[in-house]
Amino acid sequence: MTPDSSSSVYSPSLSGLGLLRGLKCAVLGGGGFIGTNLCQALVAAGAQVKAFGRSVSFPTALAGVDWTPGNFQDGSALAQIVEGCEIVFHLISSSSPATSNQNPVADLKANTLGSLNLLNLCQQYRVRKVIFISSGGTVYGIPKQLPIAESAPTDPICAYGISKLAIEKYLALYYHLHGLDYLILRVSNPYGRFQTASKSQGVVAAFLSKAINGDLLEVWGDGQVVRDYIFIDDVIAALIKAIDYSGQPRIFNIGSGVGKSINQVIDDLEILLNRPLKRRYQPKRKVDVPVNILDIALAQKLMGFQPEVAWMVGLQKTLHWLTQGGLHNL
Amino acid sequence: MTPDSSSSVYSPSLSGLGLLRGLKCAVLGGGGFIGTNLCQALVAAGAQVKAFGRSVSFPTALAGVDWTPGNFQDGSALAQIVEGCEIVFHLISSSSPATSNQNPVADLKANTLGSLNLLNLCQQYRVRKVIFISSGGTVYGIPKQLPIAESAPTDPICAYGISKLAIEKYLALYYHLHGLDYLILRVSNPYGRFQTASKSQGVVAAFLSKAINGDLLEVWGDGQVVRDYIFIDDVIAALIKAIDYSGQPRIFNIGSGVGKSINQVIDDLEILLNRPLKRRYQPKRKVDVPVNILDIALAQKLMGFQPEVAWMVGLQKTLHWLTQGGLHNL
Repeated sequence: MTPDSSSSVYSPSLSGLGLLRGLKCAVLGGGGFIGTNLCQALVAAGAQVKAFGRSVSFPTALAGVDWTPGNFQDGSALAQIVEGCEIVFHLISSSSPATSNQNPVADLKANTLGSLNLLNLCQQYRVRKVIFISSGGTVYGIPKQLPIAESAPTDPICAYGISKLAIEKYLALYYHLHGLDYLILRVSNPYGRFQTASKSQGVVAAFLSKAINGDLLEVWGDGQVVRDYIFIDDVIAALIKAIDYSGQPRIFNIGSGVGKSINQVIDDLEILLNRPLKRRYQPKRKVDVPVNILDIALAQKLMGFQPEVAWMVGLQKTLHWLTQGGLHNL
Repeated sequence: MTPDSSSSVYSPSLSGLGLLRGLKCAVLGGGGFIGTNLCQALVAAGAQVKAFGRSVSFPTALAGVDWTPGNFQDGSALAQIVEGCEIVFHLISSSSPATSNQNPVADLKANTLGSLNLLNLCQQYRVRKVIFISSGGTVYGIPKQLPIAESAPTDPICAYGISKLAIEKYLALYYHLHGLDYLILRVSNPYGRFQTASKSQGVVAAFLSKAINGDLLEVWGDGQVVRDYIFIDDVIAALIKAIDYSGQPRIFNIGSGVGKSINQVIDDLEILLNRPLKRRYQPKRKVDVPVNILDIALAQKLMGFQPEVAWMVGLQKTLHWLTQGGLHNL
């Protein structure tokens, strides 16, 4: 662990203001990329934070957090986390889009069934609200129209996306049947500090890692696949806003609203690093939709969400974090 | 068993024409209401039919069918049914909309997980096409617009509907990944012969049973809940058409396109029986959407589907079947 990973505290305006003083939160998946950032933001805002997950990538980054390692499918462990919490952030996924298609049954059991058991616990312990990170990049599948609004058809081409979608439907069902409040954020492709290449968490971490090590950047397909990248601080700001947002609708796209091809990402990394990067193009994968750009107008209008960190600034921050100590984790 | 239930052979034009001569079909759920009717139609059209399910309501009605009792979650039993089949009709559901909400976890395991295992078998045994009966009455939830088109939002208010929807998504995924062909029929509220009141299969069977026995008709809510009723022969005709239909889209509403309130249904039963029926109104249930009427234009245009049996004619046929021997099964 490096000094930077523990001192890298959430920076936006909420930090340290104590706006969430005493709020009892559980962060499921709190040891991962988004989870670690969220835990820091919640602690900085004065919340009482329990975090739970398989493993923690940056233990010292969770200073002030009550961390419990555990399996999402272990009901009694999960019950102890959920009990007494007002807000449950559900960030856990046992699979990635690509791995989910290798074993959809395992994906369904771990993610959908696990989440349904979680909802039963949240109902039992009278949790006030469940905030769920869904997948803006996979629930829609191949888009018919760009940018993609929340009302667009949802036809995932990976089991990961189907599980996310099914969990969304169960959240709405439990609200209908039991009044369990919820909010769903369909997040696009987040990047930034605490994202690690080793867990296939995203192309920015993977490419920066390879670039710094002088390795070839491996691209699936011709590099024209377009994604919507959003800096992690903007995702965390949306998660914090989700605590107090109430009303309909309860599903929001969270992205930058801007599309970049893989080739553009590499071009921009070359600008950032001020040197050419070697690319190797591989056959394209069936799991990858050709393009994904989210329409974020609804979150802007109703949640006051606004992506604030420009792409090159976000890349610069990520590079800075890496070179200040995060690198050995890539 | 009665003479009528074995001799009640599928009547529409396909019957006996041998149009499906030698086609190897599996009917999962072949012992139930829709399944029994489908098996008869397939046999009449010359197909080789294996049927599988928990139980069979009318054993003699399955003359000419290779019937195997078994549990949908028993993979090896299911494998023996699927092996060698060209067309798999998937009609199995372990729950009803109302029971599914009492135990969503059990519903998910039995139906969604079971269906996903089925898809793996169909892929393994190179089945040509899976034809799935989805639920036009539940996958949409509370409609924002009437009649409900296939492109309408899908927000079920019961776990049964969520499972049906998830299975639809997995069918599309397996087609995308493995080329396993499929067709989905979102059927509204079917009624007709072989529907039994004992299994909560539908309001027509339940009410006719009670009416004939002189019992009170129990209505959830004020009787203004509207449903789209379709006579079973029209559903079977759509299932047969589904065998040869190819192309996009692969999801079709199958209903009458006409809405009737529960009170109207009872009024019409009074006309049919030529006597007043006693009604008892109960508190409404959270599982019931206020209205469901399907837009069937897509199936009419692309599949050549047309509901041919008028409501009062269908009721008359159902009553005739009941009084000719089906009654003791209600």
